[in-house]
Order: sequence, then C-alpha cells, then structure tokens
Amino acid sequence: MSGFLFTKNATDGRARVGLIRTIRGDIQTAAVMPVGTAAAVKAMSPENVRATGAEIILGNTYHLMLRPTAERIAALGGLHRFMNWDGPILTDSGGFQVMSLAKLRKITEDGVSFQSHLDGAAYQLTPERSMEIQRLLGSNIVMAFDECTPFPVKKDDAAASMQLSMRWAKRSKEGFEAGAEHAAQNALFGIVQGSVFEDLRAQSVAALTGIGFHGYAIGGLAVGEGQAAMLSVLDYTAPLLPDDRPRYLMGVGKPPDLVQAVARGIDMFDCVLPTRSGRNGQAFTRRGTVNLRNARHADDPRPLDDGCACPACSNYSRAYLAHLVRAGEILGAVLLTWHNLHYYQQLMAGLRGAIEATRLDDFIREFEAEQAAGDIEPV
Amino acid sequence: MSGFLFTKNATDGRARVGLIRTIRGDIQTAAVMPVGTAAAVKAMSPENVRATGAEIILGNTYHLMLRPTAERIAALGGLHRFMNWDGPILTDSGGFQVMSLAKLRKITEDGVSFQSHLDGAAYQLTPERSMEIQRLLGSNIVMAFDECTPFPVKKDDAAASMQLSMRWAKRSKEGFEAGAEHAAQNALFGIVQGSVFEDLRAQSVAALTGIGFHGYAIGGLAVGEGQAAMLSVLDYTAPLLPDDRPRYLMGVGKPPDLVQAVARGIDMFDCVLPTRSGRNGQAFTRRGTVNLRNARHADDPRPLDDGCACPACSNYSRAYLAHLVRAGEILGAVLLTWHNLHYYQQLMAGLRGAIEATRLDDFIREFEAEQAAGDIEPV
Repeated sequence: MSGFLFTKNATDGRARVGLIRTIRGDIQTAAVMPVGTAAAVKAMSPENVRATGAEIILGNTYHLMLRPTAERIAALGGLHRFMNWDGPILTDSGGFQVMSLAKLRKITEDGVSFQSHLDGAAYQLTPERSMEIQRLLGSNIVMAFDECTPFPVKKDDAAASMQLSMRWAKRSKEGFEAGAEHAAQNALFGIVQGSVFEDLRAQSVAALTGIGFHGYAIGGLAVGEGQAAMLSVLDYTAPLLPDDRPRYLMGVGKPPDLVQAVARGIDMFDCVLPTRSGRNGQAFTRRGTVNLRNARHADDPRPLDDGCACPACSNYSRAYLAHLVRAGEILGAVLLTWHNLHYYQQLMAGLRGAIEATRLDDFIREFEAEQAAGDIEPV
Repeated sequence: MSGFLFTKNATDGRARVGLIRTIRGDIQTAAVMPVGTAAAVKAMSPENVRATGAEIILGNTYHLMLRPTAERIAALGGLHRFMNWDGPILTDSGGFQVMSLAKLRKITEDGVSFQSHLDGAAYQLTPERSMEIQRLLGSNIVMAFDECTPFPVKKDDAAASMQLSMRWAKRSKEGFEAGAEHAAQNALFGIVQGSVFEDLRAQSVAALTGIGFHGYAIGGLAVGEGQAAMLSVLDYTAPLLPDDRPRYLMGVGKPPDLVQAVARGIDMFDCVLPTRSGRNGQAFTRRGTVNLRNARHADDPRPLDDGCACPACSNYSRAYLAHLVRAGEILGAVLLTWHNLHYYQQLMAGLRGAIEATRLDDFIREFEAEQAAGDIEPV
C-alpha cells in the first residue's frame, strides 16, 4: 500500500475533503473523473483534459480488452503511455459494461461469458481475468469484478447477486495481490452492492470490509432508481464505510446528484454525462442545462456562461456554438465537452472549498437557487 | 488597395517567394490555406490552426450563406469574430460549391438559381450577391463569382463558360467596389477559366487583366483532368499573369501537386485534403501517404513521422493513432488533421526556403525521392 494513501483533511457534516496520493500524482477529493472509455476522453486530448482541472481519469476494461486489447496496451508500455496521460487512472472491472453492451451473456459462479458487441467474438471475464487486465493496463485504482444488479430487482435476486459479487470481491483481492509488484504500488477498491435494500447494503459493506480494500465504491446505482432512492441508499450506506478510506459513487451523475452525494460523504465520482452531452449539443452550467440546438441561441452574441473561463465561454458566442452543433462540426463537440468537463471540475472545486470553509449548506442553497433560476433571458 | 499589398522577395526559375500584407496580418507565400468551410477548420480550433503555421484560412460562401447566413454573421461582428480567427480570411465566391453541392441549378446570364442541399430552400447567387455576402463576412481576399467549367468539356462549351465568367468578373469588380469601405481595405481576385485550352486560358487572362484585380486565381482545375494536364495549363497560363500580383491555384492539391505548381510560379493554394484525409485516417508525410487503418500499424510503437513536431507525432505511437481511427474516436480526427495541416505548412516553408536559397530543383528531387521511397518498414 506504499504507493496509495488517502488523507482526510476537512469535514463539514458528513462531507469530506481529502487527498489521494498515487504513484502517478495526487487527487484532491471530492473528485469527479472524466471517462476515457477507449483510451481517450472523447473529443479531448490529454492536455485538454488536464486543462479542465481533472487529476484522474477512468478507463473501461470492457472496451479496452476488446480493442485494442490489454496485452497490446501492455506491450506498448501500458495505458498511461499509450494514451499520453501521465496522471492517475482508475479502471473499472468490466462487469457493468458486460451487462449493458455485450451480447449473449452467461453468468456462472466462475464469471461471465459473452460476445463482443464489436464483432461477436467470444470472451470470458472472471475476477482473476479482470484483475489481470487492469494490471496489464497499469491501472492505479483497480476495481473489483462484480455483477451490476439490474433495477428494479426482487430482494431475493438482489441478495443472490450481491453475494456473488462478494465472493468475486474476495477472488478479486486474491487476483490483485497475485500481481505483487503492481499491487504494492496501486490500489484495489471493493464495490458495495445490494440494490435499494438497506440490510443487503449493510451485509455487502460487512463482507467487503472483512476482506479489506484501499477504497470502497457504491455500485448498482444510477440505473434508473431515481435521485431520491439513490440518496436514500447513500444515507444508510456511506456511514457504514470506513472513515479513512475513499468512497466512490460509480456512474453518477448530474450536477445536483454530485452535490447531494458529496454532502453524504462521497469522495469520488465518474460520469459520461459531461462528455456525452457535450457531443450532443448540451451544456451544463451554473444556471442549469443549456441545449445549444434551441433556436433561441442562433443570434445570441453572449457567451454560454460569462462566469466560466473555459475556451468555449472565453472565445465564442452562443450563436457560434449553436452553429457548430447544427452543422455537425467536430469543434462543437470539442468545445462543449471541454466546457462540461470544466464545469464539473469547477463544481467539485467549489464543493471542496465550501467544505473547507464549513459552509457546505450555504453552497448547496446557492447552487440550487442558481440552477432553479435557469438560463439567462433570450436576447 | 491600401490594406492589401503583395511583395515578391525572391525567385528561383519561375518559382516565387513573397509576402502578402492584409489588414489582418501578413502571409508568407508560397502559402497553402486550410479550408474552414462552415466557419471552422474541421476538427481544429483556431489556436490549433495557428499552431500548424497557417497564416490565412479559407471560408466557403456557399455554405455560410445557407447556414448560419451571411447576414447573421455580419450582425455578430463578421466571420473573424464569429469563429475567433483574427488572421486573414479568403472567401470563395460560391460558384464552385453551387455546381458540386446544390440541387436544381439553373444558370442564366444573371447568375445561378439553386436549391440548398440542406433543406431544399431556393436561393440565387449572382456576382453582385456573392460580393455582398463576402463583404458581410468581412473577407480579406474576395473571389470573383465565376462558373466552374466542368471537365471534360467541348471547346465551344468551355469558351462560352469562360466568357460568361469574364462578364461575371467585371460585374464582380463593380460589386466589390460598390462596398467602398470594405473594398478600400481588402482585395478582389479574378479567376482564370478556359479548361485545358491554351487559347481560352490566354483570352481569360487578357479579359481579367483588362478589368484589373489584386490577384489572379487559376480555376477549373483539380476537377479530374489529372496532374499532367493541370501542370500543362500552369505551364502556359502562369507566365501570362502579372508578375507583381499573387497567383492562386484553386482547390489543389496533393503534396506533389503543390511542389510542381510552386515550381511553375503559383503563390497560393487551398485544399480540403489535409482536413478530409485526417478525418478518414489518412496521413500525409514526407514518406508519402500513410493509412492508419492498415493492420501493420496496430502494434507499432513508433511515431507517424519521427521528424515531425506536431502533437500527433510528438506524443503518440502509430499504434495509438490506429486505435483511435478504428474506434472512431474524435481525437483521431483531431490529431491526424493537425498532423496533415502541419505537414502541408512545413512543406510550404521548405519550398519557400529552397526558393530563397535558389535550390528548388534540389529540394524537389529530394522531396520526390523521399516520397518514392515510401513509408518506413513495418515493425
């Protein structure tokens, strides 16, 4: 564990500010990770990503194992070198994408057999293979291999799924530690499952803390349960997690979700929304979501957000951004992705500052009021 | 003509090195202009374009008049401000794209009626309207409105088409000068037509020089006639053009075309190849064209060109670029476009240096030998 260290530096209520130390650099928490699915944060260069303030990115095991393959990336010097990102990288385990993307999935005690969504080729993913792939990639934060329980789900099925994930968590730890050199320098996080059932979540936390991980993720959320149900899970799950380890809420979320989850003690997030929305002409701003396809922007000489320092807001009008989106110009995707990632990073910096100043409640009130007030009036 | 000045600074045989002064900055010639069709050089930010060494870009009147419209761009402060490019902009007249893209074209003495390829809406483009649009855009080098003669073409048809273009050239000059304030600061170029017929080209040059323009373009080439026919047209046309005005070969071309055209006295080029090829996984290098979709690159840790200083070559392997192209990642289009524009700019800088050193023949021999030798051996 010499290469990985979490320090909690400030609290406000249940919210925390901390620092994660990795062999690739530090991460201020609460942190949100841009998603670099296929060895690239979509529409961004690593320099662009760094310029948004991001200190860590996420890579997807499922995508990378299919193309270009983990073995190829390893032969080329690992994922950091391959994609020219020298900061920390967290990789997921592949479990979630196997469920959402692959074809002909078959789950057994051993793992998951499936066909690639790219070419139909047959693959198997087990806890051991997931650990091997993440090690080949050179991941700094490895995620345990789990089954992402679907939603809605009967309690019996949720229990069985969670228990399978806990057995896989133990095998993940053993698989992770089998790569002794990599394990000595990097971290393994366990993933709490149990859907929306409080006792199952508690059982899952107990199982994981019994095994022991460098950090703990809350999985199986942002799958359609809605914000209230998600926050309820955080309300009873986060307090059960070890105070001295980072807590990662997987796949969440919209800005209001991040704010509420931070208030409930979450330290880390990943979400495709800033990048995906950026490619779809949608911008996240302190005044809520702005759709650049809306006709109201076509003649608007004002920036997207006059308080934002990103290139999209500093150098261009809404009219120009709207034109790029309509014309299908790649630059539109680039600029809006950049803005969205910048906004997400600014939001996290704001949350960290508020926690350090013990004024998180005020921050959240101001955030919600500004979001509720909505976009500036049309010209 | 106060805002526009061309100075010829060196020659080597028929080749020239010069400087064009515009109110938006200087352009070293021989120069190649990145194409910014829809108010953006595809996949690039203006900062990226500038970093490749480009000093002037081209905008397309046809695309901009349809979307977002010239009037809208004018209301937003002109094309430079709209797209955040503060250097010189040359705009074409719309004539070429009307022929290649628009639907239900009808050509009369007055101009061209057509339907938009975007939504079928009816438009008319005349010499006067083209001048008005280019003025609304704030173009620094305005192109006369002409008919791009198709190829192959019978001589009688080529003559009639050329004569129409010459009548439109005169109306273009009058239309340009009607915008007195804009005309006083910027330039209008005439376009020589006449297909592959020497006497028609000569008649066209005589007609245009009789009217008088700040520069002269050679149009109607790169339409399928082949390199030999194109160079033959340059051989007999370029010497007829005024020595003290810039000469612009429209829509050309591949690197070997540029080299040969510069040797024949051409000062300016525009071409979509570096940007379009970049989006298609194709790179131009000093060792010829490299297709990143080729399987040979998948495990190649070497840069695309170890002698190139662009970000694609400085920071990434061929294996990574090949992966991005296969995965359809926007970053692949960005990096290869950047490389291609950088290569084109470096090629022009090399040509200018060779002309200044009176060693253009040697430069061309070395260029051709390196291109002929082809790509590095596979790993």
